[in-house]
Amino acid sequence: MKKFMDRDFLLKTEAAKKLYHEHAAKVPVIDYHCHINPMEIYEDKRYNTITEVWLGGDHYKWRAMRSCGVAEHYITGNATPAEKFQKWAETLPMLIGNPLYHWSHLELQRYFGITEPLTGENAMEIYEKCNKILAQPDMSVRGIIRKSNVKLLCTTDDPVDDLKAHELLAADPTVPAVVLPAFRPDKAMRADKETFPAYVAQLEQVVGYAINTVADMRKALNDRIAYFADRGCCVSDHDLGESCFCVEADEATLDDIFVRAKAGQAITWNEQLAYHTALLLSVGKEYAKRDWVTQFHFGVMRNNSKTMFRKIGADTGYDSMSGGTNGAGLSRLLNALEEAGALGKTILYSLSPADNGVVGTIMGAFQTDSAIPGRLQQGSAWWFNDHKTGMEEQMKSLMSLGAMGTFNGMLTDSRSFLSYTRHEYFRRILCNLFGQMVEDGEYPADWNYLGKLVENISYYNTLHYFGLDRVLK
Amino acid sequence: MKKFMDRDFLLKTEAAKKLYHEHAAKVPVIDYHCHINPMEIYEDKRYNTITEVWLGGDHYKWRAMRSCGVAEHYITGNATPAEKFQKWAETLPMLIGNPLYHWSHLELQRYFGITEPLTGENAMEIYEKCNKILAQPDMSVRGIIRKSNVKLLCTTDDPVDDLKAHELLAADPTVPAVVLPAFRPDKAMRADKETFPAYVAQLEQVVGYAINTVADMRKALNDRIAYFADRGCCVSDHDLGESCFCVEADEATLDDIFVRAKAGQAITWNEQLAYHTALLLSVGKEYAKRDWVTQFHFGVMRNNSKTMFRKIGADTGYDSMSGGTNGAGLSRLLNALEEAGALGKTILYSLSPADNGVVGTIMGAFQTDSAIPGRLQQGSAWWFNDHKTGMEEQMKSLMSLGAMGTFNGMLTDSRSFLSYTRHEYFRRILCNLFGQMVEDGEYPADWNYLGKLVENISYYNTLHYFGLDRVLK
Amino acid sequence: MKKFMDRDFLLKTEAAKKLYHEHAAKVPVIDYHCHINPMEIYEDKRYNTITEVWLGGDHYKWRAMRSCGVAEHYITGNATPAEKFQKWAETLPMLIGNPLYHWSHLELQRYFGITEPLTGENAMEIYEKCNKILAQPDMSVRGIIRKSNVKLLCTTDDPVDDLKAHELLAADPTVPAVVLPAFRPDKAMRADKETFPAYVAQLEQVVGYAINTVADMRKALNDRIAYFADRGCCVSDHDLGESCFCVEADEATLDDIFVRAKAGQAITWNEQLAYHTALLLSVGKEYAKRDWVTQFHFGVMRNNSKTMFRKIGADTGYDSMSGGTNGAGLSRLLNALEEAGALGKTILYSLSPADNGVVGTIMGAFQTDSAIPGRLQQGSAWWFNDHKTGMEEQMKSLMSLGAMGTFNGMLTDSRSFLSYTRHEYFRRILCNLFGQMVEDGEYPADWNYLGKLVENISYYNTLHYFGLDRVLK
Repeated sequence: MKKFMDRDFLLKTEAAKKLYHEHAAKVPVIDYHCHINPMEIYEDKRYNTITEVWLGGDHYKWRAMRSCGVAEHYITGNATPAEKFQKWAETLPMLIGNPLYHWSHLELQRYFGITEPLTGENAMEIYEKCNKILAQPDMSVRGIIRKSNVKLLCTTDDPVDDLKAHELLAADPTVPAVVLPAFRPDKAMRADKETFPAYVAQLEQVVGYAINTVADMRKALNDRIAYFADRGCCVSDHDLGESCFCVEADEATLDDIFVRAKAGQAITWNEQLAYHTALLLSVGKEYAKRDWVTQFHFGVMRNNSKTMFRKIGADTGYDSMSGGTNGAGLSRLLNALEEAGALGKTILYSLSPADNGVVGTIMGAFQTDSAIPGRLQQGSAWWFNDHKTGMEEQMKSLMSLGAMGTFNGMLTDSRSFLSYTRHEYFRRILCNLFGQMVEDGEYPADWNYLGKLVENISYYNTLHYFGLDRVLK
Repeated sequence: MKKFMDRDFLLKTEAAKKLYHEHAAKVPVIDYHCHINPMEIYEDKRYNTITEVWLGGDHYKWRAMRSCGVAEHYITGNATPAEKFQKWAETLPMLIGNPLYHWSHLELQRYFGITEPLTGENAMEIYEKCNKILAQPDMSVRGIIRKSNVKLLCTTDDPVDDLKAHELLAADPTVPAVVLPAFRPDKAMRADKETFPAYVAQLEQVVGYAINTVADMRKALNDRIAYFADRGCCVSDHDLGESCFCVEADEATLDDIFVRAKAGQAITWNEQLAYHTALLLSVGKEYAKRDWVTQFHFGVMRNNSKTMFRKIGADTGYDSMSGGTNGAGLSRLLNALEEAGALGKTILYSLSPADNGVVGTIMGAFQTDSAIPGRLQQGSAWWFNDHKTGMEEQMKSLMSLGAMGTFNGMLTDSRSFLSYTRHEYFRRILCNLFGQMVEDGEYPADWNYLGKLVENISYYNTLHYFGLDRVLK
Repeated sequence: MKKFMDRDFLLKTEAAKKLYHEHAAKVPVIDYHCHINPMEIYEDKRYNTITEVWLGGDHYKWRAMRSCGVAEHYITGNATPAEKFQKWAETLPMLIGNPLYHWSHLELQRYFGITEPLTGENAMEIYEKCNKILAQPDMSVRGIIRKSNVKLLCTTDDPVDDLKAHELLAADPTVPAVVLPAFRPDKAMRADKETFPAYVAQLEQVVGYAINTVADMRKALNDRIAYFADRGCCVSDHDLGESCFCVEADEATLDDIFVRAKAGQAITWNEQLAYHTALLLSVGKEYAKRDWVTQFHFGVMRNNSKTMFRKIGADTGYDSMSGGTNGAGLSRLLNALEEAGALGKTILYSLSPADNGVVGTIMGAFQTDSAIPGRLQQGSAWWFNDHKTGMEEQMKSLMSLGAMGTFNGMLTDSRSFLSYTRHEYFRRILCNLFGQMVEDGEYPADWNYLGKLVENISYYNTLHYFGLDRVLK
């Protein structure tokens, strides 16, 4: 019986151990997609309690607590930090097999030196110990980034953002990692939302001219892309919603949709999709021209419980898989982008694990003449799939259908600075998969090739794919 | 090489063996969902032949025999019990990897003390042996229940049922298990069926008043819910058909649909869904008020072969997965129930294994402020998924996405009194999963927590969730 | 650590080794579905270079090379055979976990005696060695077939084909395997395609009469079925496209659709499906009457990238899974066939691995009274699923849902004469699955039953199911 989460956690073979310890563990981290607040890096934020870091905004943990019958008072309510931590600790042993169980203990081990399992019994003892460690000088946000060996990270930013934090970070030579913005223009794409008119007004103010037509909107977004590019941005991110789509419409129709939406009038779902398609083609051309990476996320239903949305808003643990990707929609969208010269480096993420095959094969069907290995990528197991089973399935599918050696590997997609251990988690699972194949005689024990594969998937592929060699020496 | 289905069947690690033998095997059985005839318990039915128990109504076995080219004469036809058993025994070795192979041998071992594999060669010998044992006094239905350590079971009953059998059972102190009804009003919900007018007439007779409007139907069902509740019922069951839905309509429209359907006129599929939605909301409110558990089953196509349906009717082995759950429909239905104050304890079962993630995440998105651990549940791997692979996949998904510690575990969904060994089968698979995690250092070898997890999932979670503490001491 | 792809490749238990070496490896090959050119067998084609065999038409390899950023020049372009091979060898180590990795090395081992892993470093050395071996007398197409122990193979042929190659082969007693045609009338079924009018004209010429109505088309196809049957054909193949369907229409409507399509006018998608359904029912009756096997393939999107389709045409590596099978459509189609007396021996292949359960259960729901074991079959893991994970998943699903002992097992679906090693690959995976079950005590170590199961799935089931006993002694 292996010891609980020891040095060889998740590494079942000697080959896996060798690959992890001699290769994967030795390369730095690029976290090319996350949701942290860049100003917290600039200001080198500190935490008073482990509750603040762990339970302040982590809807994964909230959801798990609710699933165990913990009252909202202890989740997003007014209970004290100690009470909230106690409830979380009582929840944790129920989460056998859940990634939160491993993530939490990896964070306790790596950042706090705590190796014993957290339970309701030792909760207060561990609470005090963590808080004491958080008070140490090296446990500020920058300290955590430094000890996590993070070389570069990309935040997620709205086109209207002035990127002030990024400018400050760029000018500060003491920041331990390169921090770049990512361009996420979802709000500009959702003309069906109540908030659209206000958003357009905000964008008009930022660009300094009126946006009265779709052509204006295209120009505004292109201007913001240029602004982002000037601040180092090289990646965009798009939420395509429940399902992929590709709806064509002529310019007059598009303008009519836009004008009504801007005026706060209702548009149909099909009109929304037509508008969305048109803008995807437009920004896509700009991304391709600038050699940016595009990320498409899809298969998600948000705010399922309207009751809870009214009570505590979005991103609070009430989202789900939609279960229906629409492969034809994805294929037509990629084809439309390609025909428009707008299909550059693209990463596809479906929230449905049943879609691994669809995404993996559609991606393969657009790997056209290009010098970029893995120009089309299937992103690492995303959100609800970001666990051992999900990552193994995504990687087995990717290996079976594509060229695993070109895979960009892990990203945290996280709101927390302690989440960098998820890269470790991923790398252990990766090395275990490869190690098992070597152990079973399914891949040669050629440590040169294997070591390179592991290091590339852990670090170098992302470095080269995103063109980050220019910013990291 | 392990011996065939020995004491440690399916238990691959020492941790798994410990968890199974010291914990899972020691707690009783609650079978909260089955299709047995309660009168057979009251009358303490006996069997003349193993063919009667095994092949009398088990469409799983019929289907397997047909798949092996056995003629219908030996399945539902006029062949002798011995001939039918012979054909089944010849079929069995072909079913390598099928749950029927394990179920059959578990039943032979546990109830008949037969450990050798059944084949065409030893069929008649085993047939005679089984029949001799079935003639022993303790092999009546009550004897089987007693030796299966079943403490409580819920049958499946129509609203028009007078529950006479349940009244007789409740009044008989010698019955070895509590037998409760479950409320399954599918026939009242399917206004599109030819049989609907006759069913409404039957319901009118039972409630003693005319049902001319949807309001009348709501009242009638509520009255029957009260009648069922008076006889100990605490759970309902709904078949949502091929795919989930949520179609709203005003009362006038609903009445118009109902009046036409009652008159035997055709209604559209969308009208059917509107009527169905309205009644789900109505009974849902009543269930929630009474703290009942609601079960939603979906993703099934029934009577695929119309030819065979005409020949031998429903539930004869001609159903299948539909393959399309419609996550959005499920989400909107749950939301509508929640908004109406009608979303209480709810168990979701999809027949599509590809839906594990959709169900697991939508369920998580309705775990709102509640003192009930796992108020929303994903039901155990259902019907066509009730096998080792299916159960492992369901549990791995559940663990990855939710709080495994709150899981209600197994139910037989069976028509046979010998099926209680399926609880054993489930518990072995559960313990093997947990044991492997402990062996691999993925969960601490804390036998206190592990033992409780296993006992809870095997028994206590169901006991508490259904509020059965009040009937079982 | 096992040696790389040695004698016991993929065989993890002693039971697996015994089953493979003593049973699976000893029976011949029937390749009942492939895309090789029968004339190349008749003419006993030879290859100058390994590039010609491996990279001449294998869109799996092309796609993998593109995924690794290899320029089209080295794929379908004008690079030299040596250059192309070099690029392929450089790509190969990136394909860890991909079936191409194993297929390539199995072919190197079995046909060329090369056991070292192919990389960019030893590419030219291996290239020369392979080419030298290809020059040996026994490495002609017939030689390869002979040393692959292939007893019978079915090509894929259009109704307009005169089957001249098959006639020549049948008349030549020195051909090492029986070569039969398969009837694939897809072009006659796709009235929506631009090429339809020309195809109808071609068919008219072949049958010698005008085809002006759907009745004429039915007659023409039946005539061609008779022609094919006279030349030994016993199997048909149908591509149902992205998703299954069953659309009924009356004869006048069908004729109207046909007349317009033949005149080159556009028809709607629904009209296409109605026409397609009508013809499936028609040829289905003929197949059933003649006791042919019908194959239905579905779930595929072809030519996703229109840009590449314009450049290099179809079947060049730009296809994908569609991801949506439509279980209801499949069920209704099979039911319509059954009601029309047109549902004979039928093999179902979905390109979506998420469909294993849907296909497996719908298939089970049409196993009606028949003397043919496994009359309805789920085909072996197809195309993008033809790898270790895909085959394991297909077999685990099949075992869990159906009667594994009736499974027809493997086919290559290949364009290459070196692909027969895929049968070996499949058999090793099969034996490993069975062996693991025996090792774990899940199936008795009854070598008689086990050996028969393995030999049947590898060879005899196909032999009997297709009625090939009449042509193979």
